[in-house]
Amino acid sequence: MAVYTDISDAELDGFLDRFDLGRALSFKGIAEGVENSNFLLDTEKGRFILTIYERRVREADLPFFIALMQHLAARGFPCPTPIADRTGQALQRIRDKPAALVSFLNGVSVRRPGPAHCREAGIGLARLHLAAGGFAGRRRNDLGQPAWAGLFAGRRRDADRLRPGLSELIDRDLAMLALAWPRGLPRGVIHADLFPDNVFFAEARFVAAIDFYFACEDDFAYDLAVCLNAWCFEADGAFNVTAARALAAGYESLRPLSPAERAGLPILAHGAAMRFFLTRLIDWGRADEGALVKPKDPLEYERKLAFHRDAAGRLDLFAAP
Amino acid sequence: MAVYTDISDAELDGFLDRFDLGRALSFKGIAEGVENSNFLLDTEKGRFILTIYERRVREADLPFFIALMQHLAARGFPCPTPIADRTGQALQRIRDKPAALVSFLNGVSVRRPGPAHCREAGIGLARLHLAAGGFAGRRRNDLGQPAWAGLFAGRRRDADRLRPGLSELIDRDLAMLALAWPRGLPRGVIHADLFPDNVFFAEARFVAAIDFYFACEDDFAYDLAVCLNAWCFEADGAFNVTAARALAAGYESLRPLSPAERAGLPILAHGAAMRFFLTRLIDWGRADEGALVKPKDPLEYERKLAFHRDAAGRLDLFAAP
Repeated sequence: MAVYTDISDAELDGFLDRFDLGRALSFKGIAEGVENSNFLLDTEKGRFILTIYERRVREADLPFFIALMQHLAARGFPCPTPIADRTGQALQRIRDKPAALVSFLNGVSVRRPGPAHCREAGIGLARLHLAAGGFAGRRRNDLGQPAWAGLFAGRRRDADRLRPGLSELIDRDLAMLALAWPRGLPRGVIHADLFPDNVFFAEARFVAAIDFYFACEDDFAYDLAVCLNAWCFEADGAFNVTAARALAAGYESLRPLSPAERAGLPILAHGAAMRFFLTRLIDWGRADEGALVKPKDPLEYERKLAFHRDAAGRLDLFAAP
Repeated sequence: MAVYTDISDAELDGFLDRFDLGRALSFKGIAEGVENSNFLLDTEKGRFILTIYERRVREADLPFFIALMQHLAARGFPCPTPIADRTGQALQRIRDKPAALVSFLNGVSVRRPGPAHCREAGIGLARLHLAAGGFAGRRRNDLGQPAWAGLFAGRRRDADRLRPGLSELIDRDLAMLALAWPRGLPRGVIHADLFPDNVFFAEARFVAAIDFYFACEDDFAYDLAVCLNAWCFEADGAFNVTAARALAAGYESLRPLSPAERAGLPILAHGAAMRFFLTRLIDWGRADEGALVKPKDPLEYERKLAFHRDAAGRLDLFAAP
């Protein structure tokens, strides 16, 4: 839930003057996206989302994200399409913050995805990977495996405050991941944050993906591993292998995994759990009392980490050949 | 900004099954209304707001509010229209909380109203008072003048913490208001909270009023006095007499004030400032550090109180006859 930047009616009118979209009919802050301020805007010409980019998004990365969404939309992938103003510019400024107007997408995200949703999410993820082919933009994954040791440096005390003895387990995980991390897997542009709240469904079918503000270049199978963690654990922490197989099968229906990708998935999923554990740990350590947004629980990902640590490669997602 | 209650897609589907509105196309929490959780819902049949009533709204009052909106909408007043389910019931339950689905209204609220907006707000308020005529529901104003001494009891220390010596000024105000409060003015159903964020404009015209959850029976002129405080002070605390005259003139274009109402306005406005000062003082005293919603600044209304205390009846809104 987030509306950090307040916009007056006069500022909105000034902003809309840059476009050929007619006047504002309705304008409401929406509780979507933790990182940015989002507004639902109806004009005489249609329905849009206005996003104002807040502290978390590096301004230098915005041209990559905007161009990626334009590329994906032009290739028929259902994602928000940035709207260019009369001068052809999609990246805007409001209240001295970067901003963009994008198309509105119908669809409803699911809170508790079942296997059928996971299959659809896998299909959507593969569509995204394929549609991103040929995109010329470059952005390295600054939250990828090489970054994790640095992210954990100085956080040992926070980890032990969360659960006594945890820092030692994380150190061992990090060392193992650095050694065992798969090399040479097929790579390209990935979403890197395709959680259930970033996927829209209509009648149980994948209809759109949103929130491309972690997109970067990395291994395709790592993106699938992020989804395994985000979509296939029950609220009680149990791993739903049926859901995970459905996710992988949906993905493979459009983009079959290589043997090396399949073999790498357990380590990639362990690493993906580490990535979200670390950023949640950092947010949790930073959270001040008066913050408007409660930090996400780092323990959720600590439990997923523990699952992958114990599973130690026995993530049985593929039927014997 | 407020979404206190989280609704899953399954709960939403179950809720929509009670209506003939088709399936959900889109569902987003919106940052509107401090007291309740609000969601923008598109279905195959149209666009709606789903409100889940949180702690602040007394459940016993909801039938009054729902019936009032139905009455006003039936009389052509532009307000959210509660949607009845297949059994004719508009008041619903979700997650064991009361809830209602209402029609969506176009329009944009203004952050910094000018005199032209104030005139339109006055017209809207008079339309509301006239349209509410004949409504059979009863609800006394539990935040009206007789309640204020009780609201302040036990808050002297909070007032002095806000500004040393303030409690004594408030005591004197309360005594004066009890003595000088106008009696026998025309009364009926009032909105009682028609702040700028509760009024929608299109092309600078009043097009709708929302948030009827303080509506009650009280003096019509008291409702106008609430608006004088809410619409006619500049951000720097200055009273904009041009805006105030425009508000009163807009109101009187549809419902002329009696001499007693005109004469009573300065005291009513002093009292209206007291009412919002007191509830903000209470919220401020209660606010805990981790609260998601920051309490509104009680000092804003303390300054308005001081203005009315010093103006002492010299609120010059009407041209000499």
